[in-house]
Amino acid sequence: MAASPVKTTKIAVIGLGSMGFGMAISLARAGFDVTGADRQAALRDRFASDHGKAAESPAAAARDAEIIVTVVVNAAQTREVLFGPEGAATTARKEAVIISSATMGPADAMSLADQSAAQGLLYLDAPISGGAQRAAEGALTILASGSEAAFAKARPALDAMAAKLYQLGDEPGTGASFKMINQLLAGVHIAAACEAITFAKQLDLDIAKVYEVITGSAGNSWMFENRVPHVLDGDYTPRSAVDIFTKDLGIINDMSRAQKFPTPIAAQALQMFLMTAAAGMGRDDDASVARLYARIAGLELPQKSPSR
Amino acid sequence: MAASPVKTTKIAVIGLGSMGFGMAISLARAGFDVTGADRQAALRDRFASDHGKAAESPAAAARDAEIIVTVVVNAAQTREVLFGPEGAATTARKEAVIISSATMGPADAMSLADQSAAQGLLYLDAPISGGAQRAAEGALTILASGSEAAFAKARPALDAMAAKLYQLGDEPGTGASFKMINQLLAGVHIAAACEAITFAKQLDLDIAKVYEVITGSAGNSWMFENRVPHVLDGDYTPRSAVDIFTKDLGIINDMSRAQKFPTPIAAQALQMFLMTAAAGMGRDDDASVARLYARIAGLELPQKSPSR
Repeated sequence: MAASPVKTTKIAVIGLGSMGFGMAISLARAGFDVTGADRQAALRDRFASDHGKAAESPAAAARDAEIIVTVVVNAAQTREVLFGPEGAATTARKEAVIISSATMGPADAMSLADQSAAQGLLYLDAPISGGAQRAAEGALTILASGSEAAFAKARPALDAMAAKLYQLGDEPGTGASFKMINQLLAGVHIAAACEAITFAKQLDLDIAKVYEVITGSAGNSWMFENRVPHVLDGDYTPRSAVDIFTKDLGIINDMSRAQKFPTPIAAQALQMFLMTAAAGMGRDDDASVARLYARIAGLELPQKSPSR
Repeated sequence: MAASPVKTTKIAVIGLGSMGFGMAISLARAGFDVTGADRQAALRDRFASDHGKAAESPAAAARDAEIIVTVVVNAAQTREVLFGPEGAATTARKEAVIISSATMGPADAMSLADQSAAQGLLYLDAPISGGAQRAAEGALTILASGSEAAFAKARPALDAMAAKLYQLGDEPGTGASFKMINQLLAGVHIAAACEAITFAKQLDLDIAKVYEVITGSAGNSWMFENRVPHVLDGDYTPRSAVDIFTKDLGIINDMSRAQKFPTPIAAQALQMFLMTAAAGMGRDDDASVARLYARIAGLELPQKSPSR
């Protein structure tokens, strides 16, 4: 029997952080010929030892690849790993498809799509949602927009990475815009959750009871339910860092100014993340915004139990 | 057979608006001897025609009552209907219990409890959550605090009105504080939902699709899910009015200043509700905050279909 088409499809995954690693192993599990690239040797080794091949440069990883998944921090890094001197575009097959998953504003997504087309590459604006565990399970939500040709070529890889794929039209930038609307809400809800739970502490309420009551009430949000347990446990090990939201609410701020559209709630939330980063907690879990309120007001929040 | 204890228990429900009416009919359905009071004749008639008795003054409604449920707008009205010249305290039985359900800050709840004790009455700080429909079904969430004696006397009535009763300790003010934490989050989430959905419109996204994607993503909140459909339908018939949140976030603002505790996200949300009220929409549905953003930016949101 001939090898299945999947087994003969070469995929490069650029960026092997918590999300990219999970996406790469989901693709490897589905049978693709996956090469991962990352600047950090430890991340390359982690992937190469059990799951696939690894390369130091995007160019080396993308040699003859038909699908290139970029999962780096932002638009600037995406541009560098694709079109820089050692970028994937220098070695990828003609008409390869780029699945671009870093969070960025729609203008950047459109510009990257243009640059891809100029080099004979297809581009799918495909930001992701769901966290490291769902990435590793191939169960992400992907918010994708791009040409029919890009979708057609990317689909087997998308199916291997996503539990839920939203096809949001044929214009690059639409996926990015949907992701940013989600990030606006997510960032505001984290800041509000931290404000509310520390205000409850200030009022001498039993904050574990507050968590129980609010998660069953109209004041609940996905983020309140997910992040407040970090505060109750005093555990600020980064699941998602404060600096992710200084970045993402910063993009909202940029978009807001470019569009001349006011986003005062998001702007205030951004300031709270900036204060938390300024106080030295930028790399800690984003629930650290609660520690900022507590420090300002001299409140004692729960401490992580030493047995952990 | 003797009448059941419920049937011989007289209850006065003061305030027959959308919440009080529902609570009164739930109590009547459970078999209590209920008299409703309201300043508006139409509301009295609606209750008296099908469900129970009605009186013009709280004093008349509460004559010989063992349980008095107050469901008015705020602490000042609660004080008036209880302790004013025609207040319920002038006629209620000695050791009657007051179930106080208006939203207010904890200082007011403590002061009302003190005044009740001075007049030989029990007081339960018992704010409610859940909306008119759940009130009518006897399926509210009640966040209650007060003495054991107050709980014991109020329990049969609480059971008739609530699907979920939280007993939050023996200090009046704790129930009020829990409610205010919920209102802080609810108000911020409504303002954020309105900011996000109008920003999505500004970006030319399909806002019905945005609703679908966000309600399945980490950006979701109870309020986003509940209120954005009003925007999609262009229907601002008040289910809960803008002015409820100018009031409730105003109480948060007062509490924040009294406690010297910063609540910048809630403060920004309050400003958005105030702007919406200033623009003439105070009595419209609270999703009208979206209409404010749209007016400012010259966006066209969906209009209510004329066939309704």
